[in-house]
Amino acid sequence: MSDLPKRVEIAEEGPREGFQSEKKVIPVAEKVRLIEALAETGLRHIACVSYVNPKRVPTMADAEEVASAIRQKPGIEYAALWLNQQGLERALRGPLHVDGGVRVTASDTFSRKNIGKSVSDAMVEQRMSLKTFKDRGMPVEWGTILGAFGCNFEGELSTKLILERVQLALDEAVLAGFKLKGIKLTDAMGWATPASIERLIGAIRTKWPELEISLHLHDTRGTGMAAAYAGLRMGVTKFDASIAGLGGCPFAATEGAVGNICTEDFAFMCEEMGVETGLDVDRLIEVAKIAEEVVGRPLPGRVMRGGTLKAAKQRAAQRAAA
Amino acid sequence: MSDLPKRVEIAEEGPREGFQSEKKVIPVAEKVRLIEALAETGLRHIACVSYVNPKRVPTMADAEEVASAIRQKPGIEYAALWLNQQGLERALRGPLHVDGGVRVTASDTFSRKNIGKSVSDAMVEQRMSLKTFKDRGMPVEWGTILGAFGCNFEGELSTKLILERVQLALDEAVLAGFKLKGIKLTDAMGWATPASIERLIGAIRTKWPELEISLHLHDTRGTGMAAAYAGLRMGVTKFDASIAGLGGCPFAATEGAVGNICTEDFAFMCEEMGVETGLDVDRLIEVAKIAEEVVGRPLPGRVMRGGTLKAAKQRAAQRAAA
Repeated sequence: MSDLPKRVEIAEEGPREGFQSEKKVIPVAEKVRLIEALAETGLRHIACVSYVNPKRVPTMADAEEVASAIRQKPGIEYAALWLNQQGLERALRGPLHVDGGVRVTASDTFSRKNIGKSVSDAMVEQRMSLKTFKDRGMPVEWGTILGAFGCNFEGELSTKLILERVQLALDEAVLAGFKLKGIKLTDAMGWATPASIERLIGAIRTKWPELEISLHLHDTRGTGMAAAYAGLRMGVTKFDASIAGLGGCPFAATEGAVGNICTEDFAFMCEEMGVETGLDVDRLIEVAKIAEEVVGRPLPGRVMRGGTLKAAKQRAAQRAAA
Repeated sequence: MSDLPKRVEIAEEGPREGFQSEKKVIPVAEKVRLIEALAETGLRHIACVSYVNPKRVPTMADAEEVASAIRQKPGIEYAALWLNQQGLERALRGPLHVDGGVRVTASDTFSRKNIGKSVSDAMVEQRMSLKTFKDRGMPVEWGTILGAFGCNFEGELSTKLILERVQLALDEAVLAGFKLKGIKLTDAMGWATPASIERLIGAIRTKWPELEISLHLHDTRGTGMAAAYAGLRMGVTKFDASIAGLGGCPFAATEGAVGNICTEDFAFMCEEMGVETGLDVDRLIEVAKIAEEVVGRPLPGRVMRGGTLKAAKQRAAQRAAA
């Protein structure tokens, strides 16, 4: 399959995305158990906690506690998310990796719901964060467009609007003394289809051929894996995913909000198509089962139940030999 | 999206696939309720029952009863499956549509597990069925290759073997006085990836450019929708799918056998990409919820929980107007 990338990087979003959306109270030790198990699978980036307002996201009130309990392995980014300057300062006081970056929400209404501020007010505040990164010598290489494929509140978003948001991210980075190398397109509201992936990435590539693209897809409407495959075909080499399909955005106004595409299913599909992930799919499957124990309910991941083809081929070979 | 088909036909497999794999005893009236609801969604082909040995598939012991209870609407094929001559004769005595066709299992071992006969023994028996079709003036237009993408018992299957199986189907049809117009590739064991879809369809198209291709995909390992999208890109216009993702093959030796790709999710994805299905996605979602009631457990369909984008756009427009 010469038209697919040789290798992709999958960043794990399960703990952060998953814990924030579960109704059950999960003990700190269980959260840490899942994070530490994920660190044994080849993953290089694990989003662990969100430094957000505990009144808005009570399940993240233990962020500091979880962050300090993780026994970090070298070579892995155990990342913390933050949404405003206050959160960033909490994150920087903690032991976890903090990504410098610039974030622009596509839809103004989703921005107000998700982070409590309009797109332009959020940008004013982010200038403080960008200054903080500059002062601390932290790199700012990626811009993130939140909700880039459509909005449950505003409806369809034009490609023109998204290109403006990308331009805004690039400009604000330059203003702060940085140059972005890539744009992450996120879809917490689950609007992306293979066609819209191709359309939007095509438009961004046409305007900024040098920018790398990263995709953060949710499987809200069943199109996540097909959209991810469309991304692969467009040459995207960076994807977010969530172990066992954990997660869902609490502010996306979607009944039964659904998590990211499933880490082990996506890694399995990539490896079967000759796209290297650097991940151990068998171990990911073990960790997906741990994730089900930790949240106390079945999760939507498929290959953890269906089994890998490697396993099926081994059983077939054993049958043939017997 | 000029590289996708303008229109696809989706055949509904939910009742047949679903009822055979559910552990719960489902009353005849409930089965009929689901089938009749499906008939209100624009579907033109609904696989209702299997005339199989009730000792092997006890959940299909009521096939005759279900078949006669359905109030058939004109213009819809309410189809019955059969696996051997005895089943075919039962099917022909009943009121449901019987597809003439020739079936070849790719793997000899799966053939023995699934229908209790080797590939060549099954073919000998099928000659009787083909004669029956001829005698009754029934058309035989499609050949089906069962388990075309790999086998839980035999492992990987070579493209060469599958091409031989296609040749066998074509030859047997000719021997019986028919000419096939298409080949259906089925994957009850869930081995297909987008890459193997492209590889196998490419090989068949190269050898037989005039043959239509149909896909019957299961989402056992999470790759179903991506594989279906790969099929669309290859110009496939016929797909089987299963309401709410009902189903699973009882003889596929897969832990947690999983159903076909989900009808309403696939139809939703097609329609969002401008590929017409002739189906009413909102109605399909209502029927997916009926399917959950009928089997008494949550089913894996996504868009029935996430909601369509049409609905999200309408809500967004109402918010804007308010």
